[in-house]
Amino acid sequence: MTAQFEKYLAGRAATVNAELARCMKTVDTAPAVLAHAMGYSLAAGGKRLRPVLLMASAEALGLAPRDVLPAACAIEMIHTYSLIHDDLPAMDNDALRRGKPASHMVYGEACAILAGDALLTLAFETCAQNASVKKIGPARTTAAIAALARAAGACGMVGGQTADIFAEGMPQGKSRRAAKLTEKGSPLAGKKDGWFLLPADAGELTKKKLLAYIHSNKTGALIAAAVEIGALLAGANENTLRHMRAYGRETGLAFQIADDILDVTADKESLGKSGGDEEENKLTFVSLYGLAHAGEAARICTGKALEHLSASGIDRKRAAPLESLARFITERTY
Amino acid sequence: MTAQFEKYLAGRAATVNAELARCMKTVDTAPAVLAHAMGYSLAAGGKRLRPVLLMASAEALGLAPRDVLPAACAIEMIHTYSLIHDDLPAMDNDALRRGKPASHMVYGEACAILAGDALLTLAFETCAQNASVKKIGPARTTAAIAALARAAGACGMVGGQTADIFAEGMPQGKSRRAAKLTEKGSPLAGKKDGWFLLPADAGELTKKKLLAYIHSNKTGALIAAAVEIGALLAGANENTLRHMRAYGRETGLAFQIADDILDVTADKESLGKSGGDEEENKLTFVSLYGLAHAGEAARICTGKALEHLSASGIDRKRAAPLESLARFITERTY
Repeated sequence: MTAQFEKYLAGRAATVNAELARCMKTVDTAPAVLAHAMGYSLAAGGKRLRPVLLMASAEALGLAPRDVLPAACAIEMIHTYSLIHDDLPAMDNDALRRGKPASHMVYGEACAILAGDALLTLAFETCAQNASVKKIGPARTTAAIAALARAAGACGMVGGQTADIFAEGMPQGKSRRAAKLTEKGSPLAGKKDGWFLLPADAGELTKKKLLAYIHSNKTGALIAAAVEIGALLAGANENTLRHMRAYGRETGLAFQIADDILDVTADKESLGKSGGDEEENKLTFVSLYGLAHAGEAARICTGKALEHLSASGIDRKRAAPLESLARFITERTY
Repeated sequence: MTAQFEKYLAGRAATVNAELARCMKTVDTAPAVLAHAMGYSLAAGGKRLRPVLLMASAEALGLAPRDVLPAACAIEMIHTYSLIHDDLPAMDNDALRRGKPASHMVYGEACAILAGDALLTLAFETCAQNASVKKIGPARTTAAIAALARAAGACGMVGGQTADIFAEGMPQGKSRRAAKLTEKGSPLAGKKDGWFLLPADAGELTKKKLLAYIHSNKTGALIAAAVEIGALLAGANENTLRHMRAYGRETGLAFQIADDILDVTADKESLGKSGGDEEENKLTFVSLYGLAHAGEAARICTGKALEHLSASGIDRKRAAPLESLARFITERTY
């Protein structure tokens, strides 16, 4: 990572952080504990990769980064809520997140669920503010809201997380959670593992199909949406939009493969997580294809992302941050 | 309730139910278990009061009920998600909802959390579709989305639910959950009950203040939003909007007081709930003010709602369904 790009990333993250803090000031009539819990997780940091991608995408197409700050903050709020809910005892049961106690450890399980719900809701309230930015307007904003919701919902991130939690135990061949829900006498008795893990029309359940589904939805969908929303708000034409979507999809996939690799190679401390995926017998790119092949696959995705960026019609100089971001995502060590 | 109004309610509910089923068809690439869980709770019924109010409000101002079906379905999805999350073991821990096993009893806790998240997200995707209705357009739609999010979020429904769960035990003078979170050594040690229950600037905690906060936010905010959103989508002028908001607020409050009364007077079966509020020592209008005063208070709210409806400038005939709805809300027996 060049010093220039490092400065770019830090600067953009600081802009997002300041705006997130401003958004939290509008949460003025909530019970103090709820506002505190929302702010606690929002301020816990991270690279702010999704908002930075969203801003870079909009900027490549002629907007100023400030123009899309509402949408940028919205996508970070959605990412943050998903981490709060993922960490819950009923889900991944993680005590630590980004090196700090998870929300449910500090505020209790009920308040953590509600803080997640509130952040998801605040995301759409915030995104709607893009309608009053003159260069953007309400028509592009409603398109962005629809894209954000689609990517974050049942056919995107939430669907991916559902498949992921039901996939626990799958490397050994059985979904533990599905087994529990299909015990004799349950309304779900007789349902097969695939029913819990994949869309109804996905056909026979294979580990490869399942991993592809989890990867493209759990993390990939929201990263791809960041790029798409930036382009939608900038009013990109159909051809540019198509290539930007593909750039986002490949970058999102590369990100998740890199994440699986880091979970094996990086030390726990630098990830700020307790318990790696390995301990929970999770299906990952590394557990299914091996470490060497995973690294190669991530590089291939990045290569495809860069090809789509070239084909998008955006001039090279304007696209430079998106190029650096795609490379950073596979080369990062944290 | 007149036979004509009964027919009106049933007809509108049927229209909403058909559209909700159509919306669920767009959830086509989610894991089958997730789509099933979403559909299970959506189809569990209820009076569809919020979407009916939204349609009645839009119709009183010149739109056709069909024009606002996306927003109407959105508000029912949000109501449904809130019931799924409220029933969770970490929250109210209810096994039954509308006479059927609660979502977490059928699909497990994790899937119930995710089904709630997915319905909340789908609500905004659905509401955004109002932008393509010619008579409405994207500008009014973004205003409706912002109003919906504000009413459903930390400064509305989620805030009210937060106060409500932390209020358990308050009739005896102590918040049980707050006590647990402020044990010695906790990061929240030293925080007072009021911090968990009310906005930071609400001053000293009193039971009356707390009940007013819970009532106006937990249920009131979304009912008021239904009326407001109908008016926003119809392009109501500022004066009409102000009176319609007040009509919605008073109607929402009347609804919640009537709910507290029904919880004491109706039999469990007709409510389809396990365990009433009384058993959990919840703060309710009845426990605080007594049954006779509660009935009187609900009638006063309805009276105020009808006054605002008269002052809104909408002609009496067009406003007739809103008048019947306000009366029905206090007079209902289920």
